[in-house]
Amino acid sequence: MSFDPRRVIRGPKDGRSRIMHTMLRVRDLDASLRFYVEGLGMTVLERVDIEVRRATGVFIGFQATDVGRLLELTWYWDAEEPYTHGSGYGHVGVAVPDVAAMFDRLTALGARGVHPPAVLFEGAPARAFVKDPDGNDVELIEAPAA
Amino acid sequence: MSFDPRRVIRGPKDGRSRIMHTMLRVRDLDASLRFYVEGLGMTVLERVDIEVRRATGVFIGFQATDVGRLLELTWYWDAEEPYTHGSGYGHVGVAVPDVAAMFDRLTALGARGVHPPAVLFEGAPARAFVKDPDGNDVELIEAPAA
Repeated sequence: MSFDPRRVIRGPKDGRSRIMHTMLRVRDLDASLRFYVEGLGMTVLERVDIEVRRATGVFIGFQATDVGRLLELTWYWDAEEPYTHGSGYGHVGVAVPDVAAMFDRLTALGARGVHPPAVLFEGAPARAFVKDPDGNDVELIEAPAA
Repeated sequence: MSFDPRRVIRGPKDGRSRIMHTMLRVRDLDASLRFYVEGLGMTVLERVDIEVRRATGVFIGFQATDVGRLLELTWYWDAEEPYTHGSGYGHVGVAVPDVAAMFDRLTALGARGVHPPAVLFEGAPARAFVKDPDGNDVELIEAPAA
């Protein structure tokens, strides 16, 4: 797909500010897509290969770009070392209908579980933490149908 | 405000997965709110002070929690050292109606500009990067009303 910079504009053209995406650099795009798409169930909404930067950007999410929240995965083709993690960035929180089932699914696909599903307070939703292939924390939060 | 864990569930209770928030740890909550709320124009949608963890979580965004994309700012009351930054986490991308005006506004409030507003390709939106008070990159992307 050729690079069309106009595609970076998403959402209603109402002139209102909005949070568009969170960008994470990934070392192995196939592994990342296995985790986020095959595992978590997101969809690849857009992929741009930018020859001149030797990089690929992939926008993924659960919903259409105009309403949904997105992750932008950036893959530099020539990067060899694992990316590092500081203490400031926390995680992306994802609501799923069944945290225990998703935790099992992701760990079966090779993801590292950090905190297994647990209900921390009476009335709280089950929550769990898993690592994506680059070691980023992803929080799973149970949000079943009412 | 007392801690009600049920509030962490947001959005339509349709049983569908969705990205809920991106969490960043912040060292000076007042400075962060000056940047994100007074500067960028987000609203504080929820604040929970958790005595037992000596921490405060603040959910901020441009829209109501059920439709909008959120940031979760986590402030540990006793943290003294600045948070560190790895190479994996990239940025949060925010659409604003006027990138140049917002860049000026944020830097006037003390934010460090990283890349001033620029149009990189014909037809591309103006973009800029600024640092939030903890040194996290925020991408500003021009999305004017149609």
